[in-house]
Amino acid sequence: MVVYLVGAGPGDPELVTIKAIKVLKKADVVIYDRLANEKILEEAAGAKLIYVGKKAGVHHKTQDEINQILIHEGQKYDTVVRLKGGDPFVFGRGGEEMLALLENGIEVEVVPGVTSAIGVPGTIGLPVTHRGVATSFTVVTGHEDPTKAESQVKWDFNADTIIVLMGIGNLEENVQEILKYKDPETPVCIIENGTMPGQRIVTGALGDIAQKNVQPPALVIIGPVVDVYNQMKNSGSN
Amino acid sequence: MVVYLVGAGPGDPELVTIKAIKVLKKADVVIYDRLANEKILEEAAGAKLIYVGKKAGVHHKTQDEINQILIHEGQKYDTVVRLKGGDPFVFGRGGEEMLALLENGIEVEVVPGVTSAIGVPGTIGLPVTHRGVATSFTVVTGHEDPTKAESQVKWDFNADTIIVLMGIGNLEENVQEILKYKDPETPVCIIENGTMPGQRIVTGALGDIAQKNVQPPALVIIGPVVDVYNQMKNSGSN
Repeated sequence: MVVYLVGAGPGDPELVTIKAIKVLKKADVVIYDRLANEKILEEAAGAKLIYVGKKAGVHHKTQDEINQILIHEGQKYDTVVRLKGGDPFVFGRGGEEMLALLENGIEVEVVPGVTSAIGVPGTIGLPVTHRGVATSFTVVTGHEDPTKAESQVKWDFNADTIIVLMGIGNLEENVQEILKYKDPETPVCIIENGTMPGQRIVTGALGDIAQKNVQPPALVIIGPVVDVYNQMKNSGSN
Repeated sequence: MVVYLVGAGPGDPELVTIKAIKVLKKADVVIYDRLANEKILEEAAGAKLIYVGKKAGVHHKTQDEINQILIHEGQKYDTVVRLKGGDPFVFGRGGEEMLALLENGIEVEVVPGVTSAIGVPGTIGLPVTHRGVATSFTVVTGHEDPTKAESQVKWDFNADTIIVLMGIGNLEENVQEILKYKDPETPVCIIENGTMPGQRIVTGALGDIAQKNVQPPALVIIGPVVDVYNQMKNSGSN
């Protein structure tokens, strides 16, 4: 009786680890969120599939309900896979689920994945670090409404690169916050549908990026590494 | 003629992506650094293997020499794999190599990997983000000597979690810098040989961690998520 907390990577089904495939193949049950690519579920042929992500117009499960499903299935079956996009511990609430399972005596094994935060810019040739340009990067959720009084996110990160995940819904508000600490000329790159068919890349500067038309799912990369990407584009044929 | 810039993951050979294995299997040449685990090279049976990492007591290749090897092999062979530990764009100098190749007309494809920064704490049940505890994390290189005048790294990161890679050699100096901005009570976890046999976990606080005996390769995680890990340990059987 093990629940595997598995990262499904950024979307491209080849950017999944060997270990993730291995546990999916032996899974009795797969409990999954909305994934960038559901093709990976084909590896779990014969497993019971339980979707716990959001669906437009339908009541979606609370975290507590998801924890109860995990505990229930974990007590019943030998091999349960809890599958999450990217890495399970990067804003995936994997920690909460792991705690709930452990507190109920269920063994948990974590299978980390390629996080979209690094892997998506990586595949387009945008390095999150670069010698002489960026020796640090911060990854932050843009999902939380920055105008709410009890907002936890403070945006005065001093890292050279800032990567905002799930920030498109609040793009204008997040950019306003970041502009308190960074120059409006700071280059920005937004990648929609990273590593997937339909991938779209939008570049600009902090001062104008909020005016561009971008749709989720997308991530936002802010900092001089975006200039390195532009240099790549001008050097290469792609 | 493609050079694949490939991440080998944190060490565990199962934490490599499907795509990395695929390009290794068809590689004519593999140019590799010191890896946490050389077992992954077995996938490239028949390929020419070129080691460009450091070796104790031996002159190691400069970045310019490595770039020249990459260009030379990239012009000669169909499939060249440049293999790096973790992810190629997290302090791997992958960006410099990619630029040098593109400027010489050689096509480059990036295959991101599981970065040690997230994957190593992940496998021990230490989430780098956790709701109500950490909504952001910063990854920084600890390799640079922080006392040198032209140091690029400023340590006043305001992220909830700080992850220092390659920081064991300068642990005391780095901790002194971080103590200017963080409380000495801030919990710290150091993981030696992450995901590998010989893995060792040391916990403490910012104020005392530099006195502990730790050996590279290791990474340092600083922030309240270390308390979440302690909670996991006390809840589970592991």
